[in-house]
Amino acid sequence: MDESVGSILKSINSPADLRQLPTEQLTALCDELRQFIIDEVSSNPGHLGASLGVVELTVALHYVYNTPYDQLIWDVGHQAYGHKILTGRRDQFHTNRKYEGISGFPKPSESEYDAFGVGHASTSISAALGMALATSIKKEDDRKVVAVIGDGSMTGGMAFEGLNNAASSNSDVLIILNDNNMAIDPNVGGVSNYLLNISKSKPYNKLKNEVWEALGKLNGFGPKARRLVQKTEGALKSYLLKESNLFESLGIRYFGPIDGHDVEYLSKVLRDLRNIKGPKLLHIITKKGKGFKVAELNQTVYHAPGKFDKNTGEIIGCECDLNKPPKFQNVFGNTIVELAEQNPKIVGVTPAMPTGSSLNIMMEKMPDRAFDVGIAEPHAVTFSAGMAIQGLVPYCNIYSTFMQRAYDQIIHDVAIQKLNVIFCLDRGGLVGADGATHHGVFDLAYMRNIPNMIVSAPMDEIELRNLMFTAQQDNMGPFSIRYPRGCGCKVEWRQPFEQIPIGKGRQISEGKDLAILTIGTTGIHATRAVKSLANKEITAAHYDMRFVKPLDEELLHEIFQKFDRVITVEDGVIQGGFGSAVLEFMATHGCKSKLVRLGVPDRFIEHGTPEELQRDCGFDQKGIYQAALEILQG
Amino acid sequence: MDESVGSILKSINSPADLRQLPTEQLTALCDELRQFIIDEVSSNPGHLGASLGVVELTVALHYVYNTPYDQLIWDVGHQAYGHKILTGRRDQFHTNRKYEGISGFPKPSESEYDAFGVGHASTSISAALGMALATSIKKEDDRKVVAVIGDGSMTGGMAFEGLNNAASSNSDVLIILNDNNMAIDPNVGGVSNYLLNISKSKPYNKLKNEVWEALGKLNGFGPKARRLVQKTEGALKSYLLKESNLFESLGIRYFGPIDGHDVEYLSKVLRDLRNIKGPKLLHIITKKGKGFKVAELNQTVYHAPGKFDKNTGEIIGCECDLNKPPKFQNVFGNTIVELAEQNPKIVGVTPAMPTGSSLNIMMEKMPDRAFDVGIAEPHAVTFSAGMAIQGLVPYCNIYSTFMQRAYDQIIHDVAIQKLNVIFCLDRGGLVGADGATHHGVFDLAYMRNIPNMIVSAPMDEIELRNLMFTAQQDNMGPFSIRYPRGCGCKVEWRQPFEQIPIGKGRQISEGKDLAILTIGTTGIHATRAVKSLANKEITAAHYDMRFVKPLDEELLHEIFQKFDRVITVEDGVIQGGFGSAVLEFMATHGCKSKLVRLGVPDRFIEHGTPEELQRDCGFDQKGIYQAALEILQG
Repeated sequence: MDESVGSILKSINSPADLRQLPTEQLTALCDELRQFIIDEVSSNPGHLGASLGVVELTVALHYVYNTPYDQLIWDVGHQAYGHKILTGRRDQFHTNRKYEGISGFPKPSESEYDAFGVGHASTSISAALGMALATSIKKEDDRKVVAVIGDGSMTGGMAFEGLNNAASSNSDVLIILNDNNMAIDPNVGGVSNYLLNISKSKPYNKLKNEVWEALGKLNGFGPKARRLVQKTEGALKSYLLKESNLFESLGIRYFGPIDGHDVEYLSKVLRDLRNIKGPKLLHIITKKGKGFKVAELNQTVYHAPGKFDKNTGEIIGCECDLNKPPKFQNVFGNTIVELAEQNPKIVGVTPAMPTGSSLNIMMEKMPDRAFDVGIAEPHAVTFSAGMAIQGLVPYCNIYSTFMQRAYDQIIHDVAIQKLNVIFCLDRGGLVGADGATHHGVFDLAYMRNIPNMIVSAPMDEIELRNLMFTAQQDNMGPFSIRYPRGCGCKVEWRQPFEQIPIGKGRQISEGKDLAILTIGTTGIHATRAVKSLANKEITAAHYDMRFVKPLDEELLHEIFQKFDRVITVEDGVIQGGFGSAVLEFMATHGCKSKLVRLGVPDRFIEHGTPEELQRDCGFDQKGIYQAALEILQG
Repeated sequence: MDESVGSILKSINSPADLRQLPTEQLTALCDELRQFIIDEVSSNPGHLGASLGVVELTVALHYVYNTPYDQLIWDVGHQAYGHKILTGRRDQFHTNRKYEGISGFPKPSESEYDAFGVGHASTSISAALGMALATSIKKEDDRKVVAVIGDGSMTGGMAFEGLNNAASSNSDVLIILNDNNMAIDPNVGGVSNYLLNISKSKPYNKLKNEVWEALGKLNGFGPKARRLVQKTEGALKSYLLKESNLFESLGIRYFGPIDGHDVEYLSKVLRDLRNIKGPKLLHIITKKGKGFKVAELNQTVYHAPGKFDKNTGEIIGCECDLNKPPKFQNVFGNTIVELAEQNPKIVGVTPAMPTGSSLNIMMEKMPDRAFDVGIAEPHAVTFSAGMAIQGLVPYCNIYSTFMQRAYDQIIHDVAIQKLNVIFCLDRGGLVGADGATHHGVFDLAYMRNIPNMIVSAPMDEIELRNLMFTAQQDNMGPFSIRYPRGCGCKVEWRQPFEQIPIGKGRQISEGKDLAILTIGTTGIHATRAVKSLANKEITAAHYDMRFVKPLDEELLHEIFQKFDRVITVEDGVIQGGFGSAVLEFMATHGCKSKLVRLGVPDRFIEHGTPEELQRDCGFDQKGIYQAALEILQG
């Protein structure tokens, strides 16, 4: 075990140990836990800021609640490192987010303390309410259910749906609103402003200034008046605390705001709340990155900073090297600005991912034309549709996995009306360390089912730029462009724009033994596989198809006339995906070639590096090479 | 033209005509419009109650706003009949919802007055905000955008996402909250209670009782005290009106509540609001079914009553005939009660569709185990997941088209955790008169992409019962059962339960010339087609596959060994659907038969009867028959 583990933390192998501590030791434990998180995440990258912000809450929750019998649901789960460390995973924590290591998110299959699996935002209230009502049905009324949700996640619509339903239920669920005024980027919207107002005690101050001042003057009128004033004051106070509150007006009892970094006080408050019936919300104020100065000062950067110096906070191995290929997201971020400078109709939309998508570049340069709409993918898509119906050209940038949230809005608000919304799906394919909840592997399949939708994926940064350029034409209709997390392969990516003909692929290499059809960046693996095959004197024709829909039928006719062995490769689910689209073409046109589809098989893929996961799924360079050998033998 | 058209209404061929009327005539116009709607909908079924409730609002909006330059977005659109009639579609209104007639929902391709296409709930605020901000970017600042949203739709999360975003925007959007305390069924949840409180003036009354009473007593203290009291009272009043309000606390200026049936006053208020900057909400109180007594008294029934007597309201042709096959939804509703009586783990969940899904049967008999969670599909799914992780067995009943709203929650909260949530997808396939926004045609394709998911569709009512019976087994994981709108074919459907082996199809008829593989109720068409083919001395083997996933591989091997001509039939999109799953099987196993896939082609299908639409798509009895003849010639 690491010698840096503090002596109290070292003694905590489960929350039962924690509950033996005297209250006075909790602050010291928090310091040790915080230091442990900093030490570990500095060398093994993960989500830093959120977990530092809830150290005290985490300790207080396990101190007061009888976990795992009582159940904690951590919304998103970025903030649950402390929870993992206190619940028996301290010594495995160095494997966090690594291949075959522990998950970066709470996951019931990993620990009984992880009461519900999380990853995407805003699910915790719904899950907790279902769990709490289930305990009633099962007559386990002593079991408590607590959801911890950030103010960012609170902007997601399903959190509100959960609140609306909780309000009229007779469940005893406790919702803890962890308010640090941040999503990954600063939180935006009405809820955020409202919480800021509360935490600055606006109601109290307004009361004082506008009302109590006037009442106070009445105190001069003698004891009878004073009593009346006191009575009035009491009624007012209780009225304002109860009724002027967003949550109380919905019917959820509201407590707070309180300091989320005072572990002893937090424990006391939780102990009181534990016994209060009915749905209730505790509002705590915390600081993201708490206790690590640089992280407090640069909260977006230290949300997930990569490796850093645990003393100075200096980030190690910054990827801003101009001699290296850029991240795809930065190609998006720079290209939309270039395009928008030429085309006044272009606007940019992101649901709370300005930094993650690099739309922040446009938000800085053209603040009136780039919109962060909050953690709200369904809204982001329909908002984009609203802009498109007025003749603008929105680039709506959403991570592939989060776009699942807006599937209906894509169909109902964009595609039926054939609006020119350009969906830029970042983090397409296997994303790596974030694991099963975050892989963007369904998009090619779910997008191609939708009429009117153009479904494309660039093989490299230059193709991304050119697809973005192509998509802005009038009357194009909905256009989806998906690209992966991380960096591409082209250093010289800022090439002049070229129009790409819709539904046209391109041939990358000639060959006579078999054809390899790739979509997106799997084409890079294929080019390497083609070289390996050449060493065995096998020549493979490689086609970068670029479009899953419309398919390049002319090219496919040519391919199936020439080749009786064909492989398709995609970084996405093989049931219903690109390869299946090719099968449909073959069935329609009576093509009899043998076709092997490579991609993500029909199971959820855990975390690891993209390379490890692609290898496991069998569509990396080696997988393609092997498949080629096998298909030629078959 | 119908002689029943009133004389004022007869003169209104566009809102420009309406705007010529003196204000005093508006009430009379409303009466005529209301009567016209009742007359038309009595003989040509559609959505009655919602449109009757907004007659005055509709007239006032077109009277005050410069439509179509100013833009109205009707959330859902059930309530837009008056809007259609006033905007040049009075004389076509008898074709409402009919094949090649006008759509039951606003639709920009139909009229320039339909500013944004609608159908599903809760989209209007997002669309309106995007449209309003686009007008700013386009420097059309004189153009006004108004969203009309019901209190039911306000429970949908994306409405809240829209409000949250609108609050911090500098758009001038006006949101009109049409509060009739109903979705299709009575509205539920915190928002509904809150609105009821406001409309009963709870804040005002509380103020009066708790505070002003006390203050009032101070009046005895002379003129100086009185002035202070007045000042305090003023501050309090403005404070409470502004700050104790759900919408104001989010940062949206709130006006109301006002009577939504006083057209002159409504017009006056709208005229004032037209010039107020910033995002704002007008809360109007209306009655669903207003002006038609039976509809006011039975709001759920008269939401969409079918044909009725326009004088008495008596509904014509009730489908409660025990000698006829039942509606599939009633088979669901009765069967879940039967199952739940035997299995205490079973619970039922519906997002605001108790009557539409027939879960109301269980809600009446077992109120503690059946939950209406509001118009909130994402929440409904994750709430069900929360119940399932506690060991309960939730049947989560959502119309196929609305399940698109919860695609991410199915993947992220249910399937990854392999929870035993049973998705009962009502209104699967082409639904008929509701048209493009409501067809449930994507589900087989989007469900089968998801690992761990069992995807099934019963051919008839008995199979629905047996699939529901089968799905409740322990450790089954997520299980989807989709069935169509309307009635089945079995009068004697209450048969003893039988376990269906997972992933096993069944043979319906023997034959030697070709095989027809059907999923779901397309099997009924196929049995008829098989008979027609027999008349031509063609024998077709017909298989009801029951499961899209897992496929019955054993049966498929047998089929492809025997037949070199195979047809698949599904009431769903053919790209990526059931037929594609069979193609994938064929590719994997090297089957060389010719396969033709019948189903919904790659375009949005408009409204009409299911029979008309299935005919157009070519998978009704005749379509299958034709396809069989063609495949045998090919």
